[in-house]
Amino acid sequence: MAPYLTDVRKRAVGKALAVVLPGSTEEVSEVVRLCREHHIPIVPQSGNTGTVLGSIPDSTGNAVVLSLKRMDRILEVDADNNTMTVEAGCILDNVHAAARQVDRMFPLTLASSGSCMIGGNLAANAGGTSVLRYGTARNLCLGIQAVLPDGAVWDGLYKLRKNNTGYDLRDLFIGSEGTLGIITAAVLKLFPAPDSQQTAFVAVESPSAALKLLNLAKKQADCLLTTFELISQRSLDVVLKHFPDLKAPFPAIFPYYVLMELNGNGSEGQLGDLMEAILQSAFEEGTVLDACIAQSIAQAMTLWALRENISEAQARDGKNIKHDISVPVSQIPAFMTDTDARLQVAFPGCRMTVFGHLGDGSLHYNVGAPEGIPDDDFLARQDDVNQVVYDNVARFNGAISAEHGLGALKHDKNAHYKDAVEIQLMKKIKQAFDPDGLMNPGKVIP
Amino acid sequence: MAPYLTDVRKRAVGKALAVVLPGSTEEVSEVVRLCREHHIPIVPQSGNTGTVLGSIPDSTGNAVVLSLKRMDRILEVDADNNTMTVEAGCILDNVHAAARQVDRMFPLTLASSGSCMIGGNLAANAGGTSVLRYGTARNLCLGIQAVLPDGAVWDGLYKLRKNNTGYDLRDLFIGSEGTLGIITAAVLKLFPAPDSQQTAFVAVESPSAALKLLNLAKKQADCLLTTFELISQRSLDVVLKHFPDLKAPFPAIFPYYVLMELNGNGSEGQLGDLMEAILQSAFEEGTVLDACIAQSIAQAMTLWALRENISEAQARDGKNIKHDISVPVSQIPAFMTDTDARLQVAFPGCRMTVFGHLGDGSLHYNVGAPEGIPDDDFLARQDDVNQVVYDNVARFNGAISAEHGLGALKHDKNAHYKDAVEIQLMKKIKQAFDPDGLMNPGKVIP
Repeated sequence: MAPYLTDVRKRAVGKALAVVLPGSTEEVSEVVRLCREHHIPIVPQSGNTGTVLGSIPDSTGNAVVLSLKRMDRILEVDADNNTMTVEAGCILDNVHAAARQVDRMFPLTLASSGSCMIGGNLAANAGGTSVLRYGTARNLCLGIQAVLPDGAVWDGLYKLRKNNTGYDLRDLFIGSEGTLGIITAAVLKLFPAPDSQQTAFVAVESPSAALKLLNLAKKQADCLLTTFELISQRSLDVVLKHFPDLKAPFPAIFPYYVLMELNGNGSEGQLGDLMEAILQSAFEEGTVLDACIAQSIAQAMTLWALRENISEAQARDGKNIKHDISVPVSQIPAFMTDTDARLQVAFPGCRMTVFGHLGDGSLHYNVGAPEGIPDDDFLARQDDVNQVVYDNVARFNGAISAEHGLGALKHDKNAHYKDAVEIQLMKKIKQAFDPDGLMNPGKVIP
Repeated sequence: MAPYLTDVRKRAVGKALAVVLPGSTEEVSEVVRLCREHHIPIVPQSGNTGTVLGSIPDSTGNAVVLSLKRMDRILEVDADNNTMTVEAGCILDNVHAAARQVDRMFPLTLASSGSCMIGGNLAANAGGTSVLRYGTARNLCLGIQAVLPDGAVWDGLYKLRKNNTGYDLRDLFIGSEGTLGIITAAVLKLFPAPDSQQTAFVAVESPSAALKLLNLAKKQADCLLTTFELISQRSLDVVLKHFPDLKAPFPAIFPYYVLMELNGNGSEGQLGDLMEAILQSAFEEGTVLDACIAQSIAQAMTLWALRENISEAQARDGKNIKHDISVPVSQIPAFMTDTDARLQVAFPGCRMTVFGHLGDGSLHYNVGAPEGIPDDDFLARQDDVNQVVYDNVARFNGAISAEHGLGALKHDKNAHYKDAVEIQLMKKIKQAFDPDGLMNPGKVIP
């Protein structure tokens, strides 16, 4: 059972009575009914790639893990409707591949796409690097089927783009991390497959310059702007240190970088002209210090590798206290300046590795030990570091989880920072849907 | 009190104990607490432009109408965050104007934009003619503030594009038509103001040809395709009959037309080339019979007038049994053929006026009396006509309300067609939020 009990970051191993692997919605329903009869908690799990201990059981050993991995069928592709209906255990990469076969694209883009599954993507409302244009998992789903805590099956597999016939149950299940029921299938939105892309790596002086570039790019590229990622100098540095095959994009060193991508149809030439026009205006304004535009798919992949390997490079470089936070996009520069300063006062010399989705106001804001302090000594102060960061997130009206969810890791903290009225409403919903509290207990709800 | 009690289509006039006009969220909260204490039902109302009797009281006279119209302040415009925070009583046109002042756009586009208010737009999850690109009201809102049935204020005015810190309460209130609480303010998404547009009026043989054109346009124009409206020959005909100043777009008559618009930045020339390329491909495929592209804003407005005056022209032409329905986009042609045939069997000679948002799978599917039968005789058979249409909507896995909501007009029908499990979940939520049933009673929930 080990893989089903172990956190993806190996921070925790839970215990379970059993792991069950139903092969159909009916079997999920039967398992849920049986568990309810015997008052056994259920931990729904798909790819188990989440980072907030949301899909593994706790250490009591009284729960059953219900894995969706056998439910991996693509049920229907309706190209004219731009939808695909899939079971919850479909691996994200397989969804991508099935879309490509009909000249369509499913835009959810995550580092874990080779192992994460669509049920978990929806249960956690996954984000990633295309949110700027396409939204989070929530925005990419038209309907879901779910097994409810009493074993009933809700068939909400709507293939409709407009449907005002009642409360939005779909969005209630999406992002509820398996605490209200088990998503067993979903109708996903597809898009025309873009036939051209332009990728640029851009050097800027500060997050504030990056924000200026973002709004300039939004103005000129409109909806074609797909990705806008901020990368601090130190983030790039650790990648270059631990991935020696990767080359620095510029001979000089700059404080911050932006990875920016345009996607669209029409010729590469048009999109290329657009990218050049954006960077040209930015140079003229003094917003950009240097820039390179990928001249081929291979070059684009090299630039993306600089972004995508940050997490892995960081892990190789030592331990970090990680935060997945969001603030209003307009507040990112002030938030970073202010939080960095507060951290330097409280933990002099701590080293920041900051990167993330500036276009969405979402940062991976990671704090490492000062030079000379052992990682473990610094990690012992994790709660204090979290408090400085989260207090400041609250000050800037942000969220302490931007895209990773709450799971069993942040649900208590969340209750501290969130409006009590909102927590109360969440509890009312949980109580109404799952009065016995058997669905993924100890997650989300404080 | 008459304007507050009267349905926009003058089909019903309700009664009320009083109309209250609070000027702030605190005053809304006080009214709600008082009403709760005295067990008085509340009917929230903003612009009162809805078409399903959702915002007027019933005829018992035991309710209070709570109008949001005095709460019409724009609280904040944050251009760098592309958001605007507004009170619920803001008229949609005023939101548009405030966005334009900072070179941004709020894309919700409705015929009633001069009088409808944002609170109602959100409560009813309004649609309109830009949904294809920008989504419904739901997709245009980042946060809301609401007064709950117990008078507590939920401050969910998040300005965040990523926020995975709990259940999606925002989307639960959006589309709940005032039955779970009263939306008092909202954070709206803004977009770069597009500086060019291309509008075309296109003649096609059939809905099926229109669908082919839609997918071709989506492929080539990608996200720049903003509007794709289907107009039947008869729909155009009534407009030309009752608006003699408007000219037919083509010398010949065709079975169906499409109003198609691209919006974007960059030069008009580029967007014009794109529109021409799309129509060129469509002509080559034989998908399109004739087409004209507006050469000026004035010409574009004339083409739009042909679409926007259909409802009014229809009203002048006689009574109709109206349906606001949706099916999967791919099913529109088959749905229309099949439903038209069934109606002709049941009501020989009935006259169809069909138009709507083909790009979203949503149609205004209106059935008029056969030649020679008085309107009122035909309208007496409204329930039978509804049943043919709605039964077929169900057969095609559609929704009996695409964008107008349920109100007091369709909530019973909805319960008939909808999965009992879903209705049960809706009732659980209603019970959890509003156990006394005082919020907009007799609406949405059967």
